[in-house]
Amino acid sequence: MARPGLTARRIVDTARTVADEDGLEAVTLRRLADELGTGAASLYRHIDNRADLLTLLAADFIEGYPLVPAGRRSPQEAAVRQWVAMRRYVAEHPWSATLIASGGFHLEDARAVADHCVELLEATGLSRTRALRCYRSLWHLLLGEALNAHAVGHLHDAPPEGGDFAWAARALIAGAASVR
Amino acid sequence: MARPGLTARRIVDTARTVADEDGLEAVTLRRLADELGTGAASLYRHIDNRADLLTLLAADFIEGYPLVPAGRRSPQEAAVRQWVAMRRYVAEHPWSATLIASGGFHLEDARAVADHCVELLEATGLSRTRALRCYRSLWHLLLGEALNAHAVGHLHDAPPEGGDFAWAARALIAGAASVR
Repeated sequence: MARPGLTARRIVDTARTVADEDGLEAVTLRRLADELGTGAASLYRHIDNRADLLTLLAADFIEGYPLVPAGRRSPQEAAVRQWVAMRRYVAEHPWSATLIASGGFHLEDARAVADHCVELLEATGLSRTRALRCYRSLWHLLLGEALNAHAVGHLHDAPPEGGDFAWAARALIAGAASVR
Repeated sequence: MARPGLTARRIVDTARTVADEDGLEAVTLRRLADELGTGAASLYRHIDNRADLLTLLAADFIEGYPLVPAGRRSPQEAAVRQWVAMRRYVAEHPWSATLIASGGFHLEDARAVADHCVELLEATGLSRTRALRCYRSLWHLLLGEALNAHAVGHLHDAPPEGGDFAWAARALIAGAASVR
């Protein structure tokens, strides 16, 4: 009686906690039912299957994307700050890179952050075509760094504290204006 | 009697064929024994476990890395060509990106290609520190593009034919010289 009702909100909050603690593989209907102290039947009234659950989780993740206003920064630095904030957000939820890269869902909710990113890139003087190439490439850079457990620097030096992402994003954005 | 002997060469060639056809998950000792028409016991005389098998496969993959000579290209274009060749090689063996990113092995054999890549980047005028940052970032870009099944351009345009990699590598290398 005192137990709070089973809502989509509670389900997705629990899914995120499980993913943060034990990774994406742990996010199953059985585990969620256990965590929520409910039966699978009750859960099935809200979600059909695991793919549904991951889509809910992805939609929730996307809602939390940072939108960094340009402020008084140079257009280049404003764009870099936006991507650094996105990189940090992905790092805070390590499972998210796997979920994004799996490509299993298309969520219209991502449009706000995508548009913001592309606008910031266009503000650096890039044509729309170049801003879009840069946008896609920055995503690959972000996901590659997030997904790569291989110490690509192991044959040489270790990466500097905090990684190379901000530096690489800055270089890519600076170079995007000049190359053919 | 006429059956060729079981050699490490035959095992790794078969492992690569299985990976190319059915992905990395299909590369198991059981499948290899089936493909080679041999018993698990014979296989165990060459390899201890699946991790061994994947290390063999990775070592073989690394041996095949392209080393593109600079030739008469500009230093920038020479570096870009090297990375485009590596991108293509990874694309020809789609399982390789997962294997590299898993970070489960460290192979000294990769040193030749790593050194070549860093030297080409230094030849563009980058300091060693910047060349190393650029090297790691180009790896992330490559792996991110290879691992990302998500249509990051789906909210906007589709990527141009052949993808953005060469363009992004060129932009990153050009920008690497100018940013702080």
